[in-house]
Amino acid sequence: METVLYPPLEDWDKLCKRTSINLEKIEMVCREVFDEVSRDGDKALSRYTELYDRVKIDDFAVSDEEKAACGDKVPEELKRAILTAKANIEKFHRSQLYTPTPIETSQGVCCRQEIRPISRVGLYIPGGQAPLFSTVLMLAVPASVAGCSEVVLCSPPNASGEINPIVLWTAIECGVKKIYKVGGTQAIAAMTLGTETIPSVYKIFGPGNQYVMAAKQLAQRYGVAIDMPAGPSEVMVVADDTARAKYVAADMLSQAEHGPDSQSILATSSKRLASEVEKEVERQLALLPRREVAIKSLLHSRIVVLEDVSQCIAFSNAYAPEHLILSVESPEEWVEKISDAGSVFMGHYTPESAGDYASGTNHTLPTSSYARTYSGVNMDAFVKKITFQSISREGLKNLSSTIMTMAQNECLDAHSRAVSIRLEDDN
Amino acid sequence: METVLYPPLEDWDKLCKRTSINLEKIEMVCREVFDEVSRDGDKALSRYTELYDRVKIDDFAVSDEEKAACGDKVPEELKRAILTAKANIEKFHRSQLYTPTPIETSQGVCCRQEIRPISRVGLYIPGGQAPLFSTVLMLAVPASVAGCSEVVLCSPPNASGEINPIVLWTAIECGVKKIYKVGGTQAIAAMTLGTETIPSVYKIFGPGNQYVMAAKQLAQRYGVAIDMPAGPSEVMVVADDTARAKYVAADMLSQAEHGPDSQSILATSSKRLASEVEKEVERQLALLPRREVAIKSLLHSRIVVLEDVSQCIAFSNAYAPEHLILSVESPEEWVEKISDAGSVFMGHYTPESAGDYASGTNHTLPTSSYARTYSGVNMDAFVKKITFQSISREGLKNLSSTIMTMAQNECLDAHSRAVSIRLEDDN
Repeated sequence: METVLYPPLEDWDKLCKRTSINLEKIEMVCREVFDEVSRDGDKALSRYTELYDRVKIDDFAVSDEEKAACGDKVPEELKRAILTAKANIEKFHRSQLYTPTPIETSQGVCCRQEIRPISRVGLYIPGGQAPLFSTVLMLAVPASVAGCSEVVLCSPPNASGEINPIVLWTAIECGVKKIYKVGGTQAIAAMTLGTETIPSVYKIFGPGNQYVMAAKQLAQRYGVAIDMPAGPSEVMVVADDTARAKYVAADMLSQAEHGPDSQSILATSSKRLASEVEKEVERQLALLPRREVAIKSLLHSRIVVLEDVSQCIAFSNAYAPEHLILSVESPEEWVEKISDAGSVFMGHYTPESAGDYASGTNHTLPTSSYARTYSGVNMDAFVKKITFQSISREGLKNLSSTIMTMAQNECLDAHSRAVSIRLEDDN
Repeated sequence: METVLYPPLEDWDKLCKRTSINLEKIEMVCREVFDEVSRDGDKALSRYTELYDRVKIDDFAVSDEEKAACGDKVPEELKRAILTAKANIEKFHRSQLYTPTPIETSQGVCCRQEIRPISRVGLYIPGGQAPLFSTVLMLAVPASVAGCSEVVLCSPPNASGEINPIVLWTAIECGVKKIYKVGGTQAIAAMTLGTETIPSVYKIFGPGNQYVMAAKQLAQRYGVAIDMPAGPSEVMVVADDTARAKYVAADMLSQAEHGPDSQSILATSSKRLASEVEKEVERQLALLPRREVAIKSLLHSRIVVLEDVSQCIAFSNAYAPEHLILSVESPEEWVEKISDAGSVFMGHYTPESAGDYASGTNHTLPTSSYARTYSGVNMDAFVKKITFQSISREGLKNLSSTIMTMAQNECLDAHSRAVSIRLEDDN
């Protein structure tokens, strides 16, 4: 892990660069899958599942028996943990609901927003080494709070043709009814196009490898919305002299263990802390089961020493991190200055892993500097806002010259007439 | 214009189809422009401006002299109209601001959202036959209300190398400082990549022809966000027996005059109204300056007669219209049932043109059934929501077994350690 001392402003851009991934080639591969799924439906899913997951699946829908049985395979302690996390996530997401205020913009002209759930959403939960049941919570809980009427969940089968029981149990606890044993590009294609078994949806959520990312990008070309563009996970720790090196190191490593392309950055005003963290990372790294992954990630992670916390915050804003940990004495003082980040963890006892799992905030967050424009998944992601307006005859009369003058100047005569024709009658 | 009587449910899908546009070929053309702008900057913009706008531009920035002069070219009556509309748009968009409520999800675990403006936004205003100064209001007003610090506006120059003075005057009134005389694909490329003169932005808003739409789609591949995918404009009128045929016809025609690919649909419970509207459309059409455009649009517009208003609303939801006009006796009664639409106009004195210009709602709305997942442009489009959390030592202790159990079951040991390491100390 490189340490950069007091980089001048003109070097910040370079220090904020992410490894860019070119998905275009992968997208070409995805196109084939989409074409086949479009043509052959479930049969195409079967072929790809046999090819990639090495298992033959006849019915992709998880059966009632499988649903009933999965609970036995989840330890009670884990169930309790999942339900505690679920309660917090539900509380925080429910707190985001609000009723927009109607307004009379001018006399007799009433405007308002109404919020409606997206009716059909698809959630993708990757398989692989670790079962991401936490992501089930992060997506299925807000979908349920929003009132999405059809929630479809796809996750790849293991070698015995089953979805991970923890993922399945969590999905059921979150009220998901339509659960399918299919993964990868073919799952995204199925939710985009629909097959005999799997319904198509309007918006697809969830993480995945580069193939899944490329498939979600492709899904957009079919008119399906997605949660956000995805990239490797990342953390920025801003630390002052009060930070403890071992906590900071633990936070950086918990990012690093995510994947070889994860990035951890420490921006600190303390040269002493910088060198202590470096040592502490080495020490803790040795104890990590996923050390091999973390080592690769640390190769493109770094420590940046800057003049003061104010500069560290400015550097963080320039980077626009997915996760920002404020390991500083008075984190609240800096909140106002933070302009670009996905989720912020304040103070010495707020590790990222709290938000990854159980505090209530969502862990589906914008990476690769997308925090400049995208929010993390929140209630807005599962709803849309429809504007409504109601104008009285008097209100229209008051506004008529404004509308008609503007319409005529945009050469839209019928727009003008839609007003005048309503006012030419007597009543 | 075709009339369809009592179509069975299985025909609705077909009746709700939009003309699909394949932007992929156009995107290939856009790629060349992006590559050239990336390589040659302003010089490339000059070349394309000469090619497409047939004018040589040396400095793309609108000068202070041009800014000072434009007001003289805008009639006072139009200025007043624009300022009235601006005031309403500002009121409605300002009413959408709200402060999220912080919440303690469990003891010592405080979570909240904070709203931040997107710092750099680009607004594209097309040129062509009509100057879309109303779109300047719809984009620049919320950008200003949100507090976006850098607002860039591009609009193509006319044959004398000038931006339309009404567009320019409106932009200045909305507080836009950085205004550039460049249009089409090259404008989108400039705002995506940046040139010597034009700053790059993080999110691009605004309508345009197919080239502009394809260019915005391409911009996303460079990490730039866009307002929403675009398609031809459309209106659904739901009318009962109380509707007046001439108002309904005027509304359908004000949609039809937008462009040959616009679509107007009347869903009505009244067979009598259906045939009256048909005649009235013919009558009013004859009086329209943009009749040639409207005729083409009416070729793929239609009247659908259904059993009752409830069915008409269901049909509208299936179509997910950009604009929905409720020409029915008691529109408020139906609000709850409306699940998918961009903007809704309620009652006999609420023409779409009111919302297009001056009532206060935004006219940048989702087309092509994107209303299922996208909202029209509103304050959310110019901001992002960042989650913040603050956990006390006690709060972390309470939540520790939950986090650690979940992390261990996802095989993320360092995530678990980031918690335990904070609790192993005494204080």
